Amino acid sequence: MNAHVRPGRLTDGTRLWSSLMDMARIGALPNGGCCRLALTDEDRAARDLFVRWCREEGLTMQVDPFGNVFATRAGRRPDAGHVLVGSHLDTQPHGGRFDGVLGVLAGLEAVRGLNAAGIETEQAITLVNWTNEEGVRFSPGLTGSAGFIGAIGAYDGMAVSGVGQVPFQSELHRIGYAGRERFSGRIAGYYELHIEQGPVLERAGVPIGVVEGVQGVRWLEIDLAGEDRHAGTTPAADRRDAFMAAAGLATRMRGAALAHDRAFRITFGRVAVEPGSVNTVPGRVTMSVDLRHSDVGLLERVEQEITEAVAALRGTEGVVGTVRRTMDVAPVAFDPAMQDVIEGAACEIGAATRRLPSGAMHDASNLARIVPGAMVFVPSRGGISHNENEWTEPEHIADGCEVLARAMLRHAMGMVAAH
Amino acid sequence: MNAHVRPGRLTDGTRLWSSLMDMARIGALPNGGCCRLALTDEDRAARDLFVRWCREEGLTMQVDPFGNVFATRAGRRPDAGHVLVGSHLDTQPHGGRFDGVLGVLAGLEAVRGLNAAGIETEQAITLVNWTNEEGVRFSPGLTGSAGFIGAIGAYDGMAVSGVGQVPFQSELHRIGYAGRERFSGRIAGYYELHIEQGPVLERAGVPIGVVEGVQGVRWLEIDLAGEDRHAGTTPAADRRDAFMAAAGLATRMRGAALAHDRAFRITFGRVAVEPGSVNTVPGRVTMSVDLRHSDVGLLERVEQEITEAVAALRGTEGVVGTVRRTMDVAPVAFDPAMQDVIEGAACEIGAATRRLPSGAMHDASNLARIVPGAMVFVPSRGGISHNENEWTEPEHIADGCEVLARAMLRHAMGMVAAH
Repeated sequence: MNAHVRPGRLTDGTRLWSSLMDMARIGALPNGGCCRLALTDEDRAARDLFVRWCREEGLTMQVDPFGNVFATRAGRRPDAGHVLVGSHLDTQPHGGRFDGVLGVLAGLEAVRGLNAAGIETEQAITLVNWTNEEGVRFSPGLTGSAGFIGAIGAYDGMAVSGVGQVPFQSELHRIGYAGRERFSGRIAGYYELHIEQGPVLERAGVPIGVVEGVQGVRWLEIDLAGEDRHAGTTPAADRRDAFMAAAGLATRMRGAALAHDRAFRITFGRVAVEPGSVNTVPGRVTMSVDLRHSDVGLLERVEQEITEAVAALRGTEGVVGTVRRTMDVAPVAFDPAMQDVIEGAACEIGAATRRLPSGAMHDASNLARIVPGAMVFVPSRGGISHNENEWTEPEHIADGCEVLARAMLRHAMGMVAAH
Repeated sequence: MNAHVRPGRLTDGTRLWSSLMDMARIGALPNGGCCRLALTDEDRAARDLFVRWCREEGLTMQVDPFGNVFATRAGRRPDAGHVLVGSHLDTQPHGGRFDGVLGVLAGLEAVRGLNAAGIETEQAITLVNWTNEEGVRFSPGLTGSAGFIGAIGAYDGMAVSGVGQVPFQSELHRIGYAGRERFSGRIAGYYELHIEQGPVLERAGVPIGVVEGVQGVRWLEIDLAGEDRHAGTTPAADRRDAFMAAAGLATRMRGAALAHDRAFRITFGRVAVEPGSVNTVPGRVTMSVDLRHSDVGLLERVEQEITEAVAALRGTEGVVGTVRRTMDVAPVAFDPAMQDVIEGAACEIGAATRRLPSGAMHDASNLARIVPGAMVFVPSRGGISHNENEWTEPEHIADGCEVLARAMLRHAMGMVAAH
């Protein structure tokens, strides 16, 4: 029995915190953050450390063709399948110490706790580190989990493109993490603990988020063509001002989306106004729209409304627009029974919970398309992520890990009727 | 008597057109436009051609310390002052054949007509080519006329800055147009013929614009600070979206300005949205506002409304804004008696007129601050200017020149009570 474990707890929050801080030294940035881009030397060092820790716990290591690293603690019944637990060790260029890493090392801490307590499970427990979740060096992101579920081909060179022409496969080989065989175990369920990366839990004062699913995402690219005109000589009636068209469109579309549901998320993140001269009426605007909601029907409806509103600009502003959909990810629903087991585990340790959707995509978004999946969120201070200032309180880390471990243990004992 | 002059006309539209096309060969661009930036070799060649043509008409040449070129046709009464007529020979980088050049060469054509007809005037007539109206290579623009009225000092190296560090004074010397003495004659009035550079005359089907004045201009720079946030994880209520703040502000402020007066001109020309990522709520927007109107009180009021609206964004959008005024040019009113004489001249040749403000600044904006000033506009096809496609119909050029010549002649005969 580990000396640090709080009475009645399976996991040791202090030991987990210490592992998180050890890992954060790899690719450490001056202001407390981390830069561990996928398949760099830093990523290799992080993987090597994770593998060493797993081996110390007697786990069996496997690497698949996407570089995903699996670490299995065998169950009593070899035919009973695996409870998969994981996340990713890669970070954003100015990333924090928790995004992704927490989910991997909390799984490890759960295994350490089981080992220390001498608990055997019916099903095997397999920790996993997914490759290139962040998608910074290689596109698309969520590469490892997408490959795992068969959404992209293992050796399809077109599917994963290196930004700046760094080839994914050669980098996998270079760092020594190009596996040969796919993971062949049957997956009974997938758990992922992650920081919320949003403000909801912190604002509610709730330490444990039970994630209902992942919002669907649609990206649109809007191109508005008016006419460059002299700002001084052109009366209002003669203008075809692409920026005024864009401004009115954005204002009305946000209003419409939030009128459907206050939970709708609509963002005009990239807006380019041309020619960009103080005394020229802008003749061209291109802008992106990011739409997120759990209901695919509502996403469809808002996209339709935007398309109609852009068409109407011809009459109102003399501006001709086009709308092009550049991404479409369907919403994901997590397994209800697994949500319940997470809620029950939180209740056992006296931690309040709130159900909420995930606005960000995670490896769990991919996994839940083929196996029962679930996520646990812990609060992010200020909702800040992808930033060196990313922070989660140590007690929330400890609670999140304990909830994860208990849910996972119950599942591996065959006590969760996940579908 | 020149053979090309239409019966009853003082000027020869065909000869003027031919001079315009000769001048357009200097710095000619492939698509019919001109590039004659101030104080380049092209500008020198244009000045040399103008000087040669003036000498052929017996005019007395003078160059002042700003490189302004004056060409005087003496009057009968040396004490009676000068009627000044001119514009500028420099162009934009992708300029047309008429912006500026027309006003200089139409003045020359008027003098040619007077010479051909053997008409003597009471007052002297002085043609002028102002230096660096366009302000491309040196800032601020309208340099020559600003120097002439004393708004900037002759040898004040700080006042005229070369873009890319080309010094104004050394370039003046290099091309041989650095004069020593200011023009000392008394100015009875200043006339400038110019293309409209807007769509009003063309749309109205009117060949002659009698310009009432030049709209005042205010430039504001608005800086809006919200917070970069994840587009997926941040609910609407937790956002401080600088772009949504900017879009709403622009929409409301255009509405407010046009509600005051449909003639108000408001332009958000330069809009920068940061960080410019599809899935990040924009935390920062900087944008310029160009406000134009003939009533300084209304400019003041709209600027005040913008300042108040920006302050209110803190409460409505959680966005903190600042407004900084970066330019303020007071409106200019042209001389009513000179407007009447232009209107009368147009009536004599059967050309319809419309009174209108100038939305663009001109050298006349400077001159009219110290002497009686007036401008004549001719239509710009499609309102297009600062563009190789700039075009004015030859008959409108001819009519504009004839109106200019008649107004100028009447003035030089002492028949205009300008103040």
